[in-house]
Amino acid sequence: KKPEAPTPKPKRRAGITETAFRDAHQSIMATRLRTDDMLPICEAMDEVGYHSIEMWGGATFDAAMRFLGEDPWERLRKIKKRLRKTKTQMLMRGQNIVGYRHYSDEVVREFVKRAIGNGVDIVRVFDALNDLRNMEIAADAVKREGGELQMTISYTISPVHTLNLFAKQARDMADMGADSICIKDMAGLLSPVAASALVKAIKKRVDLPVQIHSHYTSGMAAMSYLAALEAGADVVDCAISPFAMGTSQPATETIVAALAGGPLDTELSLEKLLPVAKHYQALHEKYKDIIMGVSGVNVNILLYQIPGGMYSNLQSQLKEGGCLEKFAEVMEEVPRVRKEMGYPPLVTPTSQIVGTQAAMNVITGKRWKMVPHEVQQYFRGYYGKTPAPVDPEIQKLVLGDEKPITCRPGEKIPPEIEAAKKEIGVWCTQPEDLLSYILFPQVAKDFLPNKFSRENLVNIGQDEQDAPEAYEI
Amino acid sequence: KKPEAPTPKPKRRAGITETAFRDAHQSIMATRLRTDDMLPICEAMDEVGYHSIEMWGGATFDAAMRFLGEDPWERLRKIKKRLRKTKTQMLMRGQNIVGYRHYSDEVVREFVKRAIGNGVDIVRVFDALNDLRNMEIAADAVKREGGELQMTISYTISPVHTLNLFAKQARDMADMGADSICIKDMAGLLSPVAASALVKAIKKRVDLPVQIHSHYTSGMAAMSYLAALEAGADVVDCAISPFAMGTSQPATETIVAALAGGPLDTELSLEKLLPVAKHYQALHEKYKDIIMGVSGVNVNILLYQIPGGMYSNLQSQLKEGGCLEKFAEVMEEVPRVRKEMGYPPLVTPTSQIVGTQAAMNVITGKRWKMVPHEVQQYFRGYYGKTPAPVDPEIQKLVLGDEKPITCRPGEKIPPEIEAAKKEIGVWCTQPEDLLSYILFPQVAKDFLPNKFSRENLVNIGQDEQDAPEAYEI
Ligand SMILES: [Co+2]
Ligand SMILES: [Co+2]
Repeated sequence: KKPEAPTPKPKRRAGITETAFRDAHQSIMATRLRTDDMLPICEAMDEVGYHSIEMWGGATFDAAMRFLGEDPWERLRKIKKRLRKTKTQMLMRGQNIVGYRHYSDEVVREFVKRAIGNGVDIVRVFDALNDLRNMEIAADAVKREGGELQMTISYTISPVHTLNLFAKQARDMADMGADSICIKDMAGLLSPVAASALVKAIKKRVDLPVQIHSHYTSGMAAMSYLAALEAGADVVDCAISPFAMGTSQPATETIVAALAGGPLDTELSLEKLLPVAKHYQALHEKYKDIIMGVSGVNVNILLYQIPGGMYSNLQSQLKEGGCLEKFAEVMEEVPRVRKEMGYPPLVTPTSQIVGTQAAMNVITGKRWKMVPHEVQQYFRGYYGKTPAPVDPEIQKLVLGDEKPITCRPGEKIPPEIEAAKKEIGVWCTQPEDLLSYILFPQVAKDFLPNKFSRENLVNIGQDEQDAPEAYEI
Repeated sequence: KKPEAPTPKPKRRAGITETAFRDAHQSIMATRLRTDDMLPICEAMDEVGYHSIEMWGGATFDAAMRFLGEDPWERLRKIKKRLRKTKTQMLMRGQNIVGYRHYSDEVVREFVKRAIGNGVDIVRVFDALNDLRNMEIAADAVKREGGELQMTISYTISPVHTLNLFAKQARDMADMGADSICIKDMAGLLSPVAASALVKAIKKRVDLPVQIHSHYTSGMAAMSYLAALEAGADVVDCAISPFAMGTSQPATETIVAALAGGPLDTELSLEKLLPVAKHYQALHEKYKDIIMGVSGVNVNILLYQIPGGMYSNLQSQLKEGGCLEKFAEVMEEVPRVRKEMGYPPLVTPTSQIVGTQAAMNVITGKRWKMVPHEVQQYFRGYYGKTPAPVDPEIQKLVLGDEKPITCRPGEKIPPEIEAAKKEIGVWCTQPEDLLSYILFPQVAKDFLPNKFSRENLVNIGQDEQDAPEAYEI
């Protein structure tokens, strides 16, 4: 009997986004790499043939100023200059930009304009609650500035987060002008079974490239990439091997080798990745004291379906408070609180909000007796629309008779730029500095005068720094 | 337009073999766990519902006697007693049994009889050259003793190791009575693309369960398991998370979670794995000074396609010899030597044989000038038939006009049991002790009198130990 020839599948080249400068750097190196650590390897990375290099945004903006005294905008320009063939990519927290609160629409627009103007090609926009209104201004600004808009589904597991809901979200994003869709699995929850189903559901509704972003924390990420690619996804986020796995992404070399020779071959060469790996291996050794990537598998993610970072944060919070014995109870409280709060995906800042409330419910011995300000704001609607309605009885406990807002939270934020100009304008040597100040005023209040002083070769006294109007240019 | 319903695939439950007692233990714990470390967790492991638990053979036999002063047979009996529902499994190196040379046919048969008699349910038999004649006696003995026979394809990459060759090997194994086929990827070379093709090729030729064994060293193992299972494989080898990844197997919990809810659901519960993981976490901490599992990805495997252990062995050999600067040259020499030697899979002992010859070729500055005894024996045919013919010019250099043997190497080994009885019989307290002596005479020469003395509560003098005939029972 003649063997049947299998139906040949059309060949699709899988794309790889290298995260070594941003997410991997943030996940295992505490965001402490300096621009000078990055520049020498840019040319070699530019030769690899990545789909893109994620190199800006997320926590790197804050960390550059706060811990390294570096201008994030300068890093962007310097890296961009060296990546002549490869698209640059950034992570933007929607209306939160790269900060931890909502900013005014004008600030969002100004930030996007400057980010793209300084060299970002692809802007990945997400919102912790998947509230499209929180991504609306950013998305519109990216399109206006001619950037490539990637809109993001923050993946989570709950009774309301059905394939249908996610597919509808993708459809809405396509209608908002998205050039591609990202499935962002910040917690490593996405199984290959779920990834395959989700990609198929999205691809049925939208004809856009789909990119998968996951973390290796539960050990499933590489499998989920494979399943997602087979189901039709186009690009996956990987990190060069010395910065890979654990809390970071699957290793670039592994994914390249895994797909080689098959219908999804990345067509990247391991030889070209070798000098890149060597560079990051050296950085790994240079900074070995600050490396925080836990290797191996965090089983708690699989059991409790909460992010590894949230798990360890709660553990250390309870330890500090001298009530570590309540930890198991708090773990059981988390899903209850999350349900009552309308099943928010657990990602910054919702993971902290839910975790803190769960801990307080257990420690005080009375649920919802103590409610921190952030949780109140959440119930007031200032974080956006929750995936499911919040529990009305809990809302009553938290807000009393106060009515939550129902509009887009960004609408409530008054313009911020003019005020900032008055406060810090003297020390700004580029328009971007104003944004650095608006995003992180405490940090920038020190950082910007220092930068001004460096760039203009002048000394600034403490009294002038405190009251810039005293400084005469 | 109505969406088309996808053809529902038949549901197949993926099986998991837990390797914590054997391969994982060997790969990351230097085979130093004591039986007493294992017994307390047997009952909990027995409740999980594994396909089987690999718990004997490989290097554990030697290590138990040599490093721990433990009787490997007693370990087998004690563990078997506690695994009431779960099949036990061992790794047997064909005619090498659990040692490093070929043994006589009677020794092979006696060993299999005792292994199965003491509690092994499944015997996985392999040969470094995939020479079926080296598995023949072991396979026949397993069937005679009523054991479950798993025959093994040692996976490697070479021009002669085609899908056809492997599939034909599987077919021959089925004809030899194999109850299942194992694809043994000792080096972590098996990519998901290759795994899928290989499983399909084998399943076309044989209607037997296929099990995949891989190592995480290159980062591909979990993906390859997924691809193999989707292609029709039935069982995969995993290790509980604290003993997983790096040089060991994919994590059991990760694979369970990855397949959950899909057509290959293992139907194992993470809750039942939790106490098991806790136990091994404690062992991981207890033995943290001897843990040798390198986590992360070993890119060299992907680049050079040689096992991680061989890479690091060669590196340290050259370092000791003060010629580490030749390392790159040796790495380039390895594939040449391997080709000239007929493309042996690189696994114990062939990895050492090829590696040593490559190093000598480089260090002496003249290829094939110095040829160690093992390499000579290899060319003489004493390791078995090579996958491809050896290079005739090199054979001439090594053997001169000497003709290699072409028969089954085991035929050349005279009976060994009677002689052993004379040498060590006095100290044997069970028939199995004779085998321990034949396999590892130097180690057993100390170990068996000590065991005799322990069990019989007698002292044995050094002169009696040296000349057992002096001891009067
Ligand atoms: Co991330
Ligand atoms: Co193995």
